[in-house]
Amino acid sequence: MTSTSPALGDTARPPALIALDWGTTSLRAWLLAGPLQVLEARQSDHGIMRLPAGGFREAFETIGAEWLASAPRLPVVACGMVGSAQGWREVPYVGTPADATALAAGLTTCEMSGGRILRIVPGVMHDGPLPDVMRGEETQIVGASLGAPASAAGRRLFVLPGTHSKWAATQAGRIVEFRTFMTGEMYAALRGHTILGRLMCDAPQRDADAFERGVRTGREQHGVGGLLASVFSARSLGLAGRLPKASLADYLSGLLIGAELEGALRLFDSAGTGAVQEIDIVGNEALSARYVEAFAAAGIGRVRLHPQASPAGLWHIAALAGLIAS
Amino acid sequence: MTSTSPALGDTARPPALIALDWGTTSLRAWLLAGPLQVLEARQSDHGIMRLPAGGFREAFETIGAEWLASAPRLPVVACGMVGSAQGWREVPYVGTPADATALAAGLTTCEMSGGRILRIVPGVMHDGPLPDVMRGEETQIVGASLGAPASAAGRRLFVLPGTHSKWAATQAGRIVEFRTFMTGEMYAALRGHTILGRLMCDAPQRDADAFERGVRTGREQHGVGGLLASVFSARSLGLAGRLPKASLADYLSGLLIGAELEGALRLFDSAGTGAVQEIDIVGNEALSARYVEAFAAAGIGRVRLHPQASPAGLWHIAALAGLIAS
Repeated sequence: MTSTSPALGDTARPPALIALDWGTTSLRAWLLAGPLQVLEARQSDHGIMRLPAGGFREAFETIGAEWLASAPRLPVVACGMVGSAQGWREVPYVGTPADATALAAGLTTCEMSGGRILRIVPGVMHDGPLPDVMRGEETQIVGASLGAPASAAGRRLFVLPGTHSKWAATQAGRIVEFRTFMTGEMYAALRGHTILGRLMCDAPQRDADAFERGVRTGREQHGVGGLLASVFSARSLGLAGRLPKASLADYLSGLLIGAELEGALRLFDSAGTGAVQEIDIVGNEALSARYVEAFAAAGIGRVRLHPQASPAGLWHIAALAGLIAS
Repeated sequence: MTSTSPALGDTARPPALIALDWGTTSLRAWLLAGPLQVLEARQSDHGIMRLPAGGFREAFETIGAEWLASAPRLPVVACGMVGSAQGWREVPYVGTPADATALAAGLTTCEMSGGRILRIVPGVMHDGPLPDVMRGEETQIVGASLGAPASAAGRRLFVLPGTHSKWAATQAGRIVEFRTFMTGEMYAALRGHTILGRLMCDAPQRDADAFERGVRTGREQHGVGGLLASVFSARSLGLAGRLPKASLADYLSGLLIGAELEGALRLFDSAGTGAVQEIDIVGNEALSARYVEAFAAAGIGRVRLHPQASPAGLWHIAALAGLIAS
């Protein structure tokens, strides 16, 4: 478990909420005094698929018991896979269009040790020919939506890069549609479990040119041969001596992100709003930086970054549910 | 090792060639009396990545020594990964456009036990922004091209489904362009090493409807969100109860083949010859059948199957090189 206590301008305010983003592989926790006032942040690897012997209860006690000891009445709110069928308690999805009020109304309780209550934010389901689901990202979108203006038409486009990248469009603050791109997991599977990984080696440093070349190729090939027909180039360019082996992984990363970007622009531009002008990115710094590069190469220069969207979203949902003492 | 002796109309003809298709995971061998006259066929799992302790020499002796014992002067010709950098001897690629004469001219010798000579057919490289290579498929294309008429324009389109599907166009019998689609390996990586496999289970029988639904979705999504944005549906349709878990693997297979087909049609229709009317399929029966289904769903009903293209191609190349006694 790692713990950080950010330097704050206003440390005198008392804690008001314990916020958890409880995913598949990690558990992040924040002690909050306000929507953007983090008193302390903690992280453990007790994701729902990596629980300790004592299960969910022990995972929470390890990260949060100390906070509750000094303030037993603090509300505790969680988002993420903890509300899935494999989670602590399964919370029914809220359908699209979904806003923060609907998420607050769908908070579902779960009893922890000592009779204390955990409240879990529901995920969102988008129905259609290709149904899609998210758990955790809806809360990040709520957090990233706070305090930033929507376009004139009230529409915003979010990307949450990761193992399963989510692209989501909001209209007047409501999540109206979204789609999962399996970019991160596809990269790991291709690199770790196909012939593409055989030529690759760990690079002494990142090759930004190879990444950008991948982005360009992934975009250009999207509507032609597509990904199945372009991904082999992450080997053949190496075989032909046109890319150093140490650069092939960056090239593949760019190829996938380029294909994702082109696909997302085609999907989310279908609403007839014209070319996408700006995108909100929610995610960790290193991965967000790759997407910023890819967007810049595609002529999308207006990008907003939201590294701390989870605690802000959890605070907002808890406040709407009346859980924050005034 | 398995061995079969086909019933033949003319078994009196003497053997004239030992033909080998020596790939990554298997070694197939034929004792031939004519281009389509197989006296005996053998197969072992001694692909170049699965060699026995004695290496290439022992692998060949195991499968071919008996044939050579009774006819020591038989020429031996091989195609496939045996000519790669990881093979018995690396054979330089022939560039596109490549025909059987160029392949025969590029035969490269390699000394086996007892001073006997193995001749290896070169692979083909197609240069361009996305360079591509094949080893073994060029020989199958030669074999499949024999005795079948080309279109009026002299152009034919081949697909060789598999771990790495190859699509190739020939013009007047020369391989002019081709592309590798990583369909089979992508399927294995997604099913075996991503979350998509978690919901899947072995099906009691094939679900042809789920496969066809996958093909349709893969084609429809190709130029829109693309594969990265559609492949998650092989999970979400199961989560939403819209496809039985036992059908998800067939759906994923269809999704990938549909994406491959759509991508290939876009790539190979760019030559301006109009819509593709017919396709030659070279491959094993079960996999070819899936492609026939997918093509039929796409309105391509004229399909020619070539299950025995390797020995026919090896014979033709050996004959052009003057290796077959008249």
